[in-house]
Amino acid sequence: MNTKMIRYILAKMLGVEAALLLLPALVGAVYGEKEALCFLPVSAVLLVIYFIAGKRKPQNRTIYGKEGMIIVASAWILWSLFGALPFTLSGSIPYYLDAVFETVSGFTTTGSSILQNIEELPQCMLFWRSFTHWVGGMGVLVFVMVLTSLDKKNTMYLMRAEVPGPEKDKLVPKMMSTARILYAMYLGLTLIEVILLLFGGMNLFDGLIHAFGTAGTGGFSNYGASVGHFDSAYIDGVITVFMILFGINFNLYFLLLLGEAKSVWKNEELRVYLGIIAGAVAVITLNISGQFPNPLQAFRYASFQVASIITTTGYATADYNGWPMLSQCILILLMIIGACASSTGGGIKVSRFMIIIKSIKREIKQMLHPKSVNLIKVNGRKIGPDVLRVVYIYLLAYMGIVVGSILLVSIDNLDFGTTFSSVMATLNNIGPGIGDVGPVGNFAEFSPLSKIVFCFDMLAGRLEIFPFLMLFTLSAWRRKF
Amino acid sequence: MNTKMIRYILAKMLGVEAALLLLPALVGAVYGEKEALCFLPVSAVLLVIYFIAGKRKPQNRTIYGKEGMIIVASAWILWSLFGALPFTLSGSIPYYLDAVFETVSGFTTTGSSILQNIEELPQCMLFWRSFTHWVGGMGVLVFVMVLTSLDKKNTMYLMRAEVPGPEKDKLVPKMMSTARILYAMYLGLTLIEVILLLFGGMNLFDGLIHAFGTAGTGGFSNYGASVGHFDSAYIDGVITVFMILFGINFNLYFLLLLGEAKSVWKNEELRVYLGIIAGAVAVITLNISGQFPNPLQAFRYASFQVASIITTTGYATADYNGWPMLSQCILILLMIIGACASSTGGGIKVSRFMIIIKSIKREIKQMLHPKSVNLIKVNGRKIGPDVLRVVYIYLLAYMGIVVGSILLVSIDNLDFGTTFSSVMATLNNIGPGIGDVGPVGNFAEFSPLSKIVFCFDMLAGRLEIFPFLMLFTLSAWRRKF
Repeated sequence: MNTKMIRYILAKMLGVEAALLLLPALVGAVYGEKEALCFLPVSAVLLVIYFIAGKRKPQNRTIYGKEGMIIVASAWILWSLFGALPFTLSGSIPYYLDAVFETVSGFTTTGSSILQNIEELPQCMLFWRSFTHWVGGMGVLVFVMVLTSLDKKNTMYLMRAEVPGPEKDKLVPKMMSTARILYAMYLGLTLIEVILLLFGGMNLFDGLIHAFGTAGTGGFSNYGASVGHFDSAYIDGVITVFMILFGINFNLYFLLLLGEAKSVWKNEELRVYLGIIAGAVAVITLNISGQFPNPLQAFRYASFQVASIITTTGYATADYNGWPMLSQCILILLMIIGACASSTGGGIKVSRFMIIIKSIKREIKQMLHPKSVNLIKVNGRKIGPDVLRVVYIYLLAYMGIVVGSILLVSIDNLDFGTTFSSVMATLNNIGPGIGDVGPVGNFAEFSPLSKIVFCFDMLAGRLEIFPFLMLFTLSAWRRKF
Repeated sequence: MNTKMIRYILAKMLGVEAALLLLPALVGAVYGEKEALCFLPVSAVLLVIYFIAGKRKPQNRTIYGKEGMIIVASAWILWSLFGALPFTLSGSIPYYLDAVFETVSGFTTTGSSILQNIEELPQCMLFWRSFTHWVGGMGVLVFVMVLTSLDKKNTMYLMRAEVPGPEKDKLVPKMMSTARILYAMYLGLTLIEVILLLFGGMNLFDGLIHAFGTAGTGGFSNYGASVGHFDSAYIDGVITVFMILFGINFNLYFLLLLGEAKSVWKNEELRVYLGIIAGAVAVITLNISGQFPNPLQAFRYASFQVASIITTTGYATADYNGWPMLSQCILILLMIIGACASSTGGGIKVSRFMIIIKSIKREIKQMLHPKSVNLIKVNGRKIGPDVLRVVYIYLLAYMGIVVGSILLVSIDNLDFGTTFSSVMATLNNIGPGIGDVGPVGNFAEFSPLSKIVFCFDMLAGRLEIFPFLMLFTLSAWRRKF
């Protein structure tokens, strides 16, 4: 275990956070808020750590998958622990654990909140809260990678733990340059959304906040009623489209830039993703049409909610707690499926879902015709037995975390829908669930134990479970070879 | 596909059911009930089918796994469809679909009921209802195998689809004789339980009914209050112990008979099974102790309910809907885990559960030390990659059925706890769930569509999913090779 290199990279990353914290301070200065000062001491402390621990570059710079995963997992935790401080220092979120919850929720692009009166927060705090989404969405590592200068060999391992989903082939070779392009595309898409939102009558501040939440598929709004606050079909439409766009595999945008539109359209995951969205919107529109004056309205609210949930954003324009149970169950299913691999979205990911369905089909075929050879293909490429095994185990570990978390959260003695969906909403990085944690509810009523469980789930979900489980495995630290 | 042999064996099995139906008729005669006559025409029809379709033994008697699975799945469906007729003919359950639900629930040893006033049924119908548990518990095939004379080679395939759980090594070699011993042990344990229940003041009829329900891990009672009706610590204790006994791998009793007590005690699955029971009882006792006058009472109700749920029996002595959510969630977890492999219980099975946990541990180890070789062992024996793959896919197919069923059942628009737990209770062959389908509720309020879904789930759960999925795969019937 190369602990020196771990320390070095983590110090660099904390330095980046020190710089990021100056942005909300600036916003606060513009609005003349005294709370803006609370960002400065935290930034200063981080800077000191950066200079002390990150000064000397270690001689042995080789790191492997194990170190990479530990760095990524530790980075998210450290960023959250420090990023939470301004909330508590300013008194915006008096309890530190609540502030940590909110910051973990931000960086992991979950969007679950313990705030009961969002509008009461100063603008600079609201900005920081949503900005964590935007930073988290791109992935701390992809973000930092562009700024620091690591050996090319090493970044591959970091990337492996960072980019969500099983697919990452196209991006790996030319890591540094593709990371820059990725970053530029992310910035570009965000800017386009901001501009479109401004056309809808939003002010710049609201536009930034909601674009941050969409880009990171996070879902923090600066209004208690979320996007429903604006009550505008145009704004709903823009955000719906952008949520779907940010849930698409970013490699496909890369291919688009390269002029390979044909292979984008042939992408199997994209087709399944869009197919699921279309199907879910159709069924929910029919299912809720009785509650709206006309089918077009039902379509508007259904499509917004479907896009918001499958991309794990978590914005709301309607309280779907009042929708029929079929619609609620479809939404819960979408929570689990999640967005495409290599997008900013969470959940199990559409490609894993496809692999599972194909595996089950193959197993039945194999039972019927024991001598036949059946390969599992995604996007025309064969999926090897090792990848399959990891996907299976991933899902089973996922189930295990769901079960364990539900047991711990159930100690709070809330109803089953709330207990179950609060775990699903955090582990899949959605934000709201059903019941008490529905779109008009929040996570304030839970006990400290449950809040810690939720923080664990949000991080585990964002880090695709295994790097995070590894961090808590003692032998990762003990043995050396 | 050897359809002639399938027809032949199914005809034989229907002949067995014709004989079984005479038993409740006899019970009805003893009680002087006119409803007893309703069993006779059904029995007669089955006898005619037996003689017409089962007369000529096919020349080609070779059957493979595919045929075996189709026979088993079809047998359970046919038995249920015919076994439901007396309920409807006698007017005890006027709607045929309800009667089919009740009979499927019986033969699959689920114990879910659509009856709102159980006590109103004539004794002969109550007897038949519970007798299906006892027959189902042993497995239609193990049962029939002793009576019919199939080639030894063929019975192995039938057994593979029949005996629940991944382990079946000890039993396979000397199939016919071991089946007889198994059958004798099952009968013996049932008789001991009846005698012990009689000592507790039960009459013979109640004793038989409750022993049938325990032996098959079914859970039908002839009282609306289930075992709670007797309000006796002695009866609760006897049934608790016997539920746990019937949830143990029957191979272990076989080993006990052979004098190998030591290897029984070393059995890993047994230890985990008893450990889970002890842990769950301890936590629930503490969790509910506030609701009872003394801890001993809490222990009594907790241990009964834990035994009832983990063995997927489904008897109740208390309405656990009123228990704290932690206890309810533990019970739901126990529903999923289920009993030991090769017992009469349902669920995922403890041994599969162990394999999953060990797989996840191995995966983390492998990530930490990529070069290390980590084998998965259960009971000291290595589990091969093919078995592992089937276990993984089994669980994923299980999850798929859960999700699909929840979506269909949610159309009925009941609360989430009811929707979720009704699916879990039927797929895992438990009986009651939480919410409206809790221990004092029933399945009457669901739509016909949901009832069909539940029948599917009960059969899929009992047949370990794959044989049942195969039956609905068109290519199983179309292609020959």
